[in-house]
Formats: sequence, structure tokens, C-alpha cells
Amino acid sequence: MTTDIHAYMQQVGKQAKDASRALAAASTEQKNNALLVIYDKLATAKADILAANKIDMDNGKQNNLDAALLDRLELTDPRFDAMLQGLKDVAALPDPIGEVTDMTFRPSGIQLGKMRVPLGVVGMIYESRPNVTLEAASLALKSGNAIILRGGSEAFESNQAIAKYILEGLKEAGLPAYGVQVLQTTDRAAVGELITLTDYVDVIVPRGGKGLIERISNDAKVPVIKHLDGNCHTYIDSDADPEIAVKVSVNAKTHRYGTCNTMETLLVDKAVANDLLPKIAEAIIDADDAMQLRLDAEAKAILQDNAKLAGHLSDATDSDWDTEYLAPILAIKVIAGLDAAIDHINTHGSQHTDVIITDNYSKSQRFIREVDSSSVMINASSRFADGFEYGLGAEIGISTDKIHARGPVGLNGLTSQKWIVYGHGEVRG
Amino acid sequence: MTTDIHAYMQQVGKQAKDASRALAAASTEQKNNALLVIYDKLATAKADILAANKIDMDNGKQNNLDAALLDRLELTDPRFDAMLQGLKDVAALPDPIGEVTDMTFRPSGIQLGKMRVPLGVVGMIYESRPNVTLEAASLALKSGNAIILRGGSEAFESNQAIAKYILEGLKEAGLPAYGVQVLQTTDRAAVGELITLTDYVDVIVPRGGKGLIERISNDAKVPVIKHLDGNCHTYIDSDADPEIAVKVSVNAKTHRYGTCNTMETLLVDKAVANDLLPKIAEAIIDADDAMQLRLDAEAKAILQDNAKLAGHLSDATDSDWDTEYLAPILAIKVIAGLDAAIDHINTHGSQHTDVIITDNYSKSQRFIREVDSSSVMINASSRFADGFEYGLGAEIGISTDKIHARGPVGLNGLTSQKWIVYGHGEVRG
Repeated sequence: MTTDIHAYMQQVGKQAKDASRALAAASTEQKNNALLVIYDKLATAKADILAANKIDMDNGKQNNLDAALLDRLELTDPRFDAMLQGLKDVAALPDPIGEVTDMTFRPSGIQLGKMRVPLGVVGMIYESRPNVTLEAASLALKSGNAIILRGGSEAFESNQAIAKYILEGLKEAGLPAYGVQVLQTTDRAAVGELITLTDYVDVIVPRGGKGLIERISNDAKVPVIKHLDGNCHTYIDSDADPEIAVKVSVNAKTHRYGTCNTMETLLVDKAVANDLLPKIAEAIIDADDAMQLRLDAEAKAILQDNAKLAGHLSDATDSDWDTEYLAPILAIKVIAGLDAAIDHINTHGSQHTDVIITDNYSKSQRFIREVDSSSVMINASSRFADGFEYGLGAEIGISTDKIHARGPVGLNGLTSQKWIVYGHGEVRG
Repeated sequence: MTTDIHAYMQQVGKQAKDASRALAAASTEQKNNALLVIYDKLATAKADILAANKIDMDNGKQNNLDAALLDRLELTDPRFDAMLQGLKDVAALPDPIGEVTDMTFRPSGIQLGKMRVPLGVVGMIYESRPNVTLEAASLALKSGNAIILRGGSEAFESNQAIAKYILEGLKEAGLPAYGVQVLQTTDRAAVGELITLTDYVDVIVPRGGKGLIERISNDAKVPVIKHLDGNCHTYIDSDADPEIAVKVSVNAKTHRYGTCNTMETLLVDKAVANDLLPKIAEAIIDADDAMQLRLDAEAKAILQDNAKLAGHLSDATDSDWDTEYLAPILAIKVIAGLDAAIDHINTHGSQHTDVIITDNYSKSQRFIREVDSSSVMINASSRFADGFEYGLGAEIGISTDKIHARGPVGLNGLTSQKWIVYGHGEVRG
């Protein structure tokens, strides 16, 4: 079986590489047309796809999948429509491919510039949500890449059904049918093959839990655009505007819990902790009565007798500073100023998104420069760290790496720049 | 011993990471000053360093190292001076760090931009030439990175001597002494540790033979900026200017043989092969009488009775199309036009540098767009694919990858861009 999977994946990889050449040369019009043809195919096939999804849901219930997973798996009517609308949204985005920048003449006489080109073949590994199949396929197509998709086994029927109509659409639009390949196996060995297909695959984009992404990163030979965790901080400086400190802290913690740009640790300068920490803590409890606050000793000394906070407080342990809760829990630490805050964030953070609240120019600039995170903010909620808020149009993922792409990754994350030279017969002397 | 090496490398990695934070925050003046202090230290210590190099040379001769390797190992007087001059050249380069671009207001009110920042810790693995130690250290310092250097065991004494004065210079200039660490072991296990130090090392830059780089790429867990081979093509289109076709072909093949941007295969459109191929072949033999031409059947039919080429011709085999000769050998193929040329290059090339000679607009643009190489040129010698010719000031290496950096890599290749947000109390609604 493993030998079969190896041969199958070699074939899939080769097909993708061949298709990627034609896709790289496809015009913007061809690619947008393909997206709209696929839209029409899927719209007509709605009943088929929802029926396939029902099989996955029935199997999932029989296999006792947990409620959260079943919820992500389900293609409801509005979800189906939103998924299709995504195709039109991607078609409306500017085409990143072919953009030429920085054309300059060199002393030798050659004219040198950079052209944006597709990476080639993208491998995507993800769990449960079948709408990711269509979203990833559309982003790959728009950026001129071929894509190999490996969804979760629980969504197998849904993904195959969607793939069938993507394939029909590609053919009808005159683009290579192997431009989008959804693996026709649930064998786990296929993942191991995909992430080591260095001859054919240019980048792996995993989406899913931290465990999945760590496993893939660890075993991959193909470069991975990975997103691990978001342990985001807000640091309330001694020169913070109190109103902004309260408003931004409440938003960063309570706007949503399951998102990676949510604040997990609040750091408060000890010079203003007595004054500001009770106001912030009370406002957060006001926003969500289910909130639990985990306090270091100094924060505890300030907050423990506050009647409004009774029942919401507990002691922080060392592991709290390294934890992404994704829940109504907030760690709070009183800290000895800017240097200690930067040091804490660079030591315990996940290099995702960190915020300073201050009205001091020098400290704002030092924080921006010295905090080593993919997004660093002054006086704004960490919840803004997002491809749509950043104006990228679409989000491939959020990278916690420093190589290639950092932070929210848009269509450009699936591209590269090659050097182009316009000459007139120049030779090197 | 392996346990010791593991502990040693963990310590080296941690020291580098700590040092990288101070280096990231260092001002341009501090970094340039450190480069000039190191210059003075090394200038004063010239006799010491040349003496250490003599030990390496004596050991090398005793160990029967080959002549080419001994030549690369030797620090002659002019080489020592050139090595030192490199420090002043790097000090004179613009500082890439802290550059802010693309600041724009988003509809939410936040102002979003990108700031160029160091990668953090660079691991460099290289062979023989001890001047690489100083060159890599100076480029890392200038770009605000800490660096861990692992030179060849044959250059151990030279590298340790250079490292000693770099260390003194860093201390005197007030920068962290662990900013530049030359490994104090020749144990090969240290390489295996270095390329898997994902907690501390952000990128690995190997320099050396293809075998070394393939081994490193295969085993590394840290991202690698790698340069494999340069199998470069020049395609003579049917609309080529004959004079440019001859001039560029001669330069691309005969200017230097050991360089990765040298032409290895000449492709000639069959429509002009009868006319142009003899002229090009004769001019190449004129330029170097030692040249060997390996011909496909059609090229052979055209050239075999040419008296001037007698003794220079042989039949190409399939493997010739995939070979980087680095020698006075050229493979020649007559090809059926642009599509066949692009297909041949994308199939057999190494995605390094490929050239079309043409005066046809449409074909030049299709070649530029569809050839999937890090440098694609019209009417210019492939020998221009070089950091200095491209105006990068310094060259970290030439990347044959598509991720992060492609083609000649300058100081920016050791940097990343983080997102910065200037807010005024904005929260997400």
C-alpha cells in the first residue's frame, strides 16, 4: 500500500508541476474566467455537494466526532453560498503575477528589474472545513499556481464532490485539469509523501491545530509557510492614555476568543498599575462575566480585595506566560517598565502580534523596533492583525516564520520575484 | 562526545540568540564603528593571522590536500589586504535595518506599514577559504544579525585567529561578544546540531560544493538559503541580431569557467542554425582553443565538416543537457523554436540564469515570462547574474530557491519585514 501511495503521489506531483507551467503563463482574463466558470458549475451542483456533505456528517456522527468538529464540517445553505461568493471575490482581486518593479539601468548598460511570478506548486494540508478546498483552490489559481489539496478524512466526500466540479470548470475554461488536485485517498502516508515531494512541490501551507503543524514542519523537506500559536501581549506603559488603555485591552481580549490575534497576557507598568489595572480588569469583567484573570503576585496585591472581581481571580503559574488560551482567560503581570516588557514579550511571546499603549514618542519607537514579532502595534487592538484588516484582499494564512512571509499572508505569499534583464548586446568585461 | 557537542551547540545557539537582540537594536553608527574597530584589530594582528594560516597550509600539505583546495586556503598578502578592505566596503553600504515602507491608512483608522528587521541568528557552513569568515561576519553585523560560523577543518587555525580579533573588536565597540561565534570544534556532529537548532537559528547559509549543500538541505530543520548548480542556457532565436548572438555567446561561455552564471548549453533555432551556428562555434573556438563542443545530431550535421572546428567536436549524450561543466565544454542543440526552447530550459535547466537573443518583441516577452529561472535575460550575457553587477553591494550568495530570496542575494536576504501599526486607540468592531 505504501508503495502504491508513493507512486500515486509521484504522479500527482508530476501532473501538478506540468500544470503549473501552463497556469504560470495564463492571462488574468483566463484565470478570472475559470473562477467564474467554476462558480457556475458549483452553483448548479449545489444539491450534489450538500448530499455529499450529508454523508460526511452522518459518518461523523456515527464515529462520534465532537460537536465543534461536526460544526466545522457542516456545509449549511448560507455557508455554501458564502463559499461560492468567495470565488467572485477572488476573481475581483488584482492579479499579482507579472508585476514588474524596480527597473533601473546598471552602469554596464543592462536594465534590471524584478517580475512577480507564481511559486509553482502549492501543497495544502487542512482539517474538517470543506470550504477551505474551494478557497485554497481559488487563491492558487488566481496566483498562477497549481495546488494539491489534502483535506481531513472526515470531509472526504464533500471535498471529492467539490473537486469534481472544479475539474469540470478548469477543463471548460481551457486551463489544465491537474491545476487543482484533491487527493483521492485518506491514507495518512500521502501526507508524508506530499511534504517531501521536493522535485514537484514548492511550498506547503498547513492549516489546523498546533500539533498538526508542528508534525508537518518537523518532517517536511519542502518549505512550509506555517502558523503556530498566537500568544499576544498588550503592554500598558506608564505614559499610556488611560481611556485608550481600557478600550484597547477590552477589545483585544474580549472581541473574540478563538482567534490567534487575541490578547493572552496583559503587562502593566508598575508605575501606573495601582491606578489603571483595576479599571482595565473591571472593564474586561463587564464585557464578559465568564472571564478568568490569572495574576502574578503584584497584580494580585492590587486586585484581590476588589469586590467586583471576586470569583474571577486566581494565581498565575509560570506556564501561564507561555500559553495561548483561546478562551475567556487572561494572564496579568505587573512589570518594571519598557525594558522588562520587551524582554518578557521576546522571551514568552510567539512572535505574532504585540501592542504598546503609550503616549511617549521614544518608548513607542523603541517598542516598535525591538519587539521581534510579525506585527507590532502602538495604541491599537491586536485584533487588527488580519489579512482583511491589512487590506490584502485574501488571507492564505498568518505566518509565524521570518523567512519568505511574515504575519498575515496574502496572494503575494504564493508568489516569488525573479530578476529580469533587458539588454542590448551587453557582455561582461 | 556527541552529548558534549549537543550541549556545546545549545550553548552557542542560546548565546547567539541573546546577542541577536542587542544587535537588532544597534544603531547604524555602532555597527559601522564595530566594523572599523575590527579592521584596526586585524590590521595590527596581520602577522599572527598569516602565521596561523601557515599552520593550516603546512597541515594541508602533510594531509595531501589537492592543489585547488590549498590555493583557496592560502591567505596571501594581497588576499589579506582585500579581506580587510571588505570591512570598509561593508561599512560603507547603506544600513537595510529599520527601513519603513508602504505606510498607509486603513479604513479602520490604523496606519499600517512594513519595517525591515534582521532575521536574528544566521548559521554559516563553508569550506576552505578563511576570508569567508570575515566576509560573512561583517555582512551579518551590518544587517543586525548574530552569526555562527562553521568553516572547514582544514582552515581551523586561520578561522580561530580571525575570530579572536573579531571578538576583541566587538567588545571594544560595545557590541555583544557572542554576536560572531566561530565554532571551536571540528567535530562533524556540530554541523548536524547547527542545522537543527530551530530554537535559536533563523537561517542557514551553506557555501561549498553541490554535495555539501544537498546534504545540508536534506537534513536541515532550519530554513536554508541554498545555491545548487548553475546550468545556464543561451537561446539564439530566429530573429536574433547575428552580431549580438555571437558576442553574447562568446562572453557567456568563455569569460570564466568556474562561475555558476557561465553558459553550459547553447540552443539555436533551426531556422537560423545553418547560418549562425558556424559563426558562433568558430568565435568560441577563437576565444579558447581548448574548448570542446558536444553536439546533438542536427548541430553535428551543420558543424562536422567545418575545418576550423576539427578536433573540438563530439556527440552529446542525454546527460549533457543536465550538466554544469564549470569547464571549457559547451553542449549545443538545434531546436524547433521558442516553445521547444522554453520547454528544454524548464526541463533541463537549474532555474539559475537563462538568456534569449532576439529582436522580436513578442518572443522576448514570452521568454521573460515563461522561463522559470531566478534571472531571465534578453540580449545580454548570463555572466551579469551577480550581486555586484546587480548593484546589491555585497553578495551573501545566489539562491536557486523560490522561497524568501531568489537569484543573487544581498544584505536584504538576511532581513525580514515585520508589520507595524500606528494607532490612536482603534479597536476592532
